[in-house]
Amino acid sequence: MIIVVITVSERDYDVIVVGAGIMGLASAYHLKIAMPDKSIVVLEKESSYSQGNSGRSVSGYRDFFSTVVNQKLSKSSIKFYSYIQKDLGYDIQMKNVGYMFLMSMSKFDSMKSIITKLQSSTDLRILDRSELSKIHPLILDVDKEESRALNLQPIEVGVLGRRCGVLEIEKLSSFYYEECRRLGVEFNFKTQVNSLDVVPRNPSGYPNEPFLWQDKLIGGISTNRGDYSARRYVLTTGAWTGKLLDRIGVDSHMKAKKRFVYQIGGNSITEMVRTSYGLNDEGLFPFLVLPSHGVYLRPHPSSGTFWISTSGTTSDQEIGPTFSFDSADDIEYTEPSDEYFVDNILPVLRAYMRDMPDMKITGKWTGYYSLNSQDKTPYIFAFLNAIVATGGSGAGLMKSDSIGRVVASIASGQTETRLFDGSTILNSSLGVADRDVGIETLRF
Amino acid sequence: MIIVVITVSERDYDVIVVGAGIMGLASAYHLKIAMPDKSIVVLEKESSYSQGNSGRSVSGYRDFFSTVVNQKLSKSSIKFYSYIQKDLGYDIQMKNVGYMFLMSMSKFDSMKSIITKLQSSTDLRILDRSELSKIHPLILDVDKEESRALNLQPIEVGVLGRRCGVLEIEKLSSFYYEECRRLGVEFNFKTQVNSLDVVPRNPSGYPNEPFLWQDKLIGGISTNRGDYSARRYVLTTGAWTGKLLDRIGVDSHMKAKKRFVYQIGGNSITEMVRTSYGLNDEGLFPFLVLPSHGVYLRPHPSSGTFWISTSGTTSDQEIGPTFSFDSADDIEYTEPSDEYFVDNILPVLRAYMRDMPDMKITGKWTGYYSLNSQDKTPYIFAFLNAIVATGGSGAGLMKSDSIGRVVASIASGQTETRLFDGSTILNSSLGVADRDVGIETLRF
Repeated sequence: MIIVVITVSERDYDVIVVGAGIMGLASAYHLKIAMPDKSIVVLEKESSYSQGNSGRSVSGYRDFFSTVVNQKLSKSSIKFYSYIQKDLGYDIQMKNVGYMFLMSMSKFDSMKSIITKLQSSTDLRILDRSELSKIHPLILDVDKEESRALNLQPIEVGVLGRRCGVLEIEKLSSFYYEECRRLGVEFNFKTQVNSLDVVPRNPSGYPNEPFLWQDKLIGGISTNRGDYSARRYVLTTGAWTGKLLDRIGVDSHMKAKKRFVYQIGGNSITEMVRTSYGLNDEGLFPFLVLPSHGVYLRPHPSSGTFWISTSGTTSDQEIGPTFSFDSADDIEYTEPSDEYFVDNILPVLRAYMRDMPDMKITGKWTGYYSLNSQDKTPYIFAFLNAIVATGGSGAGLMKSDSIGRVVASIASGQTETRLFDGSTILNSSLGVADRDVGIETLRF
Repeated sequence: MIIVVITVSERDYDVIVVGAGIMGLASAYHLKIAMPDKSIVVLEKESSYSQGNSGRSVSGYRDFFSTVVNQKLSKSSIKFYSYIQKDLGYDIQMKNVGYMFLMSMSKFDSMKSIITKLQSSTDLRILDRSELSKIHPLILDVDKEESRALNLQPIEVGVLGRRCGVLEIEKLSSFYYEECRRLGVEFNFKTQVNSLDVVPRNPSGYPNEPFLWQDKLIGGISTNRGDYSARRYVLTTGAWTGKLLDRIGVDSHMKAKKRFVYQIGGNSITEMVRTSYGLNDEGLFPFLVLPSHGVYLRPHPSSGTFWISTSGTTSDQEIGPTFSFDSADDIEYTEPSDEYFVDNILPVLRAYMRDMPDMKITGKWTGYYSLNSQDKTPYIFAFLNAIVATGGSGAGLMKSDSIGRVVASIASGQTETRLFDGSTILNSSLGVADRDVGIETLRF
């Protein structure tokens, strides 16, 4: 009898990226471009890339935000995504359908100065009631009784971002993945990182290291498939970031917030999805945010459905056990109930939209926002020999290319990042100690 | 046989304050003064007030911070504590021993503009090496070998806040408690709040309420001793805040960070504690922060000991499993080991201080900071019919009176708080949506 003993030896790299969601993919790609000679591995617990909350996002994109840093991060990323599709000819199903916030006049007035400023930097169209009335599915005169019962805001103004729309995140992810592979980035799937091992930079050899007075670094990580080590670690771990960092006393500045997405279809819906109402040149319905309770509709052209969800940003509406912040151990992609849609979302939808006689739920899933509920802006910060990028707050996809560039810039020891569109960002402004981003208010 | 069935009926109040630590006591006191006709109850899981992390704090106070809001919160609170002791004659053992940061010249230079500004508003004394050399226990010329091995900064400057010192938090707590009782505030001890019950403001009667579109409020709380309800809830729950709020999807903006406190005594220590070295008029050693690794000494005059601990504010030193952020379920006041002191703190202490031949550990305990690691400044924010005050970040005691006044001001529907010393604070600046506090940098 021959006994074969397989010992999994420690694997050593220059850089380990933890998490192959869209931020991890973009980070690995830009890291490899910045340091082509370095060995880079991406570890991912799922069996492929973007199978976690990236793949569960609704993948809309917009370039209008209240803060300059969010404007920069999104604008450059969108330009790069467009470059991928148009110049490189890699189809990511980017559809410039527009992104429209419907709102009351008083809400519009409160945002007027931001919107006026934005009009000089991007293409925003403001629609009044007479223009909105041409979008036939919209009910502009919401029933008064219903409005009171459901706490609804009136539809009085539409703010349409025209350089905005939707794309297929699996396709965008595939672009980054294939480029990473081509450049020599390694991917280890089904590899779940359980903990980060903090060690002294100069070991003393005494037990119970590291001590308070020792310089420290991440010496390795333990996974379900053995230990790994690297000179540098990049954590693009989305909703799981808190779990890894809490254990070593580093603040992740994010909370994992559950949200449900419902796909609704039917002939009337498909017809609506494939009508532009003069709002874009794609012949498709825009990404639409209703004026109340954060309910939004994302047109999904190829299936002829809408994906409907709620914003998840902290408001006095989304409070209660349904909206709990889950610790990483509780993160489960349990299928949401039809009942939740019928009780919570459908009444709002029906109050604002007509022409959906045969609407039916054709799909549904649970995802998690990595929410920074203070400033609703990503965090990119370094500690020891690690860099953390998190806090997409429901607007991560549309900033991910820029986030990847900032990560690569920090890893390269630079203080400033030049984005794809030539604009620059001070890296420390997205960090903790010198954070300088302002509070994002253009959300729903 | 007679069977007595005791049903605990729901108890209803105008205001429920959860947590009888120093922030809860100050809040209850100022709430009752602001609304004397309202029924107020304080619920506390321990068997008395300030038995949790307030009672485990080292209770030093200082009035010098880098941000205006922290200067205001502390300055007015300290003035009120002084008023309690001097004018009301209630002895809280307030000793104006001073609060001294020792630092390198380069650190001092980096803080110079802040310190210069502070000198116009409070009494700061800057000590150079020749002045520091008169403080005999200090080792100004740290051994070079040791300095390198322990990553030590040199002692080149002392910044001494003279309107600073120490007090007995149990005595200060007793003042607030007795005043609360006198004014008619109720206290229910051994009452642990387990959850907040979010309900619709206008119930529809349908199952699964509250719905997304309903206005909500906290309808009640469940405790180990039955249910309570109130018109308004105040959460001064320190390290437990995250536990209560995560469950309903409200960000607490704090992490529970463990820290160990060691009491060291011995004849040489007692002699040192009771010598002022010309630094104050109390004849006592000042509160002293060493230049490295956040190690500080708090003189405890009545016992003739020093309490020694570390700052706990996030730095690249305090990273690792010892410094984990604990979820509320993991909060345990386990006694720290002597070994931890010997391995981690003692080497730093011995490098900077002499004359401690018979030093010994005479006591030790574990406490938790309620740490806001972004701006190191308290959060006071309202959601639904609740107000949360948390994030003392190791400097909560010295701001608690002001925090209590802000809580009472918000509960009274005001937008601005007039503090004890007449200065004013915009309530929303300490909240989330309009947070405007800056990042506190004067810490160790």
